[in-house]
Amino acid sequence: MPKIVDHDERRAHIADAVMRIIARDGFERVTMREIATEAGYAHGAIVRYFPNKDSLLEAAFVRVYSAAHARVLGAIEGHRGLDALRRMCAEILPFSPRGAASARVVLAFWDHAALNEHLTLIHEHHNMRWRDLFRTFLQQARDDDELAPQIDIETAVNEIAVRNAGWQMTSVLLPQTATDEQVERGLDALIASYRRAPATVGV
Amino acid sequence: MPKIVDHDERRAHIADAVMRIIARDGFERVTMREIATEAGYAHGAIVRYFPNKDSLLEAAFVRVYSAAHARVLGAIEGHRGLDALRRMCAEILPFSPRGAASARVVLAFWDHAALNEHLTLIHEHHNMRWRDLFRTFLQQARDDDELAPQIDIETAVNEIAVRNAGWQMTSVLLPQTATDEQVERGLDALIASYRRAPATVGV
Repeated sequence: MPKIVDHDERRAHIADAVMRIIARDGFERVTMREIATEAGYAHGAIVRYFPNKDSLLEAAFVRVYSAAHARVLGAIEGHRGLDALRRMCAEILPFSPRGAASARVVLAFWDHAALNEHLTLIHEHHNMRWRDLFRTFLQQARDDDELAPQIDIETAVNEIAVRNAGWQMTSVLLPQTATDEQVERGLDALIASYRRAPATVGV
Repeated sequence: MPKIVDHDERRAHIADAVMRIIARDGFERVTMREIATEAGYAHGAIVRYFPNKDSLLEAAFVRVYSAAHARVLGAIEGHRGLDALRRMCAEILPFSPRGAASARVVLAFWDHAALNEHLTLIHEHHNMRWRDLFRTFLQQARDDDELAPQIDIETAVNEIAVRNAGWQMTSVLLPQTATDEQVERGLDALIASYRRAPATVGV
């Protein structure tokens, strides 16, 4: 019987190898030879799945994003409103131990996506899917009367997306300001700023 | 008399050319030849001032940052507290027309700074100088009793720095979510979240 090759598994295995190399050495220094060594495949097998460097970067980014999205879906199940929003952001933000390595891939992806329309669209697709979830949770918070009345939902969706992105850069380039405790305090402050103040006793 | 060359002016002129090329084509595609053409100098003149690509990227980043810092100092003069904080952020955020081009340089710089200790330190130096200003303005707001009592100043300094960074990426990769109006609304919401609620009449 011929050997059955699981192509999806091979692609994922290679993407993981690329992710490790980017986190360690940066995307500029990634070579097909290094990937083959890291993944334990022949050079020809890599080229078969990923014909050029941008396709490798895309695979590593989609792998990082898909892993985060799977964690998000697990974390929000059975939750809604600001509780779900907080749980979702906690999965996206660069908490240790995985955070900084993933953020390194994201930083490389941003820089290259700006030059490549296909990568820009992949980024946009993923980002918009998360914005849709932020919007859903904020609307639930409004429906449940837990959202502060002055909060404009579209502005808040933008702010949440923007700050989550900013933390990716910060965890790579200013790790002393992005400890788990600092990232958590920031998230707590964000959620608190959206929460309706408790009714004042006696009014 | 020998011709007097203003070396600082030449460096600045070359850095501006690099900035324009990065904004147009991305840093990966920058070549010494292209810079020479863009700046109107001989190839040898470029190499004399900037021996390698990282030194060019550094010069372009410092140029973007210095220009922003000069605008910040002009905008905050005679202002304090949340008013000064808002004015400072307005100069840093990627408003049109200059914003997106500067943000493109910043994105390239982040990616490369992650691989180069010298660039990481330059980024940290500039970032910390701005964080010091954010801290000063928040402390003034506390002293002037305009800061909401629940705001922790160190957490707020981190949040402001992080979201300003996130807007740089967003203006390049998701420009449809980073119009001047959207950036301004986000800034208004941020400042509003720090402002002490007006005293309730009748309490």
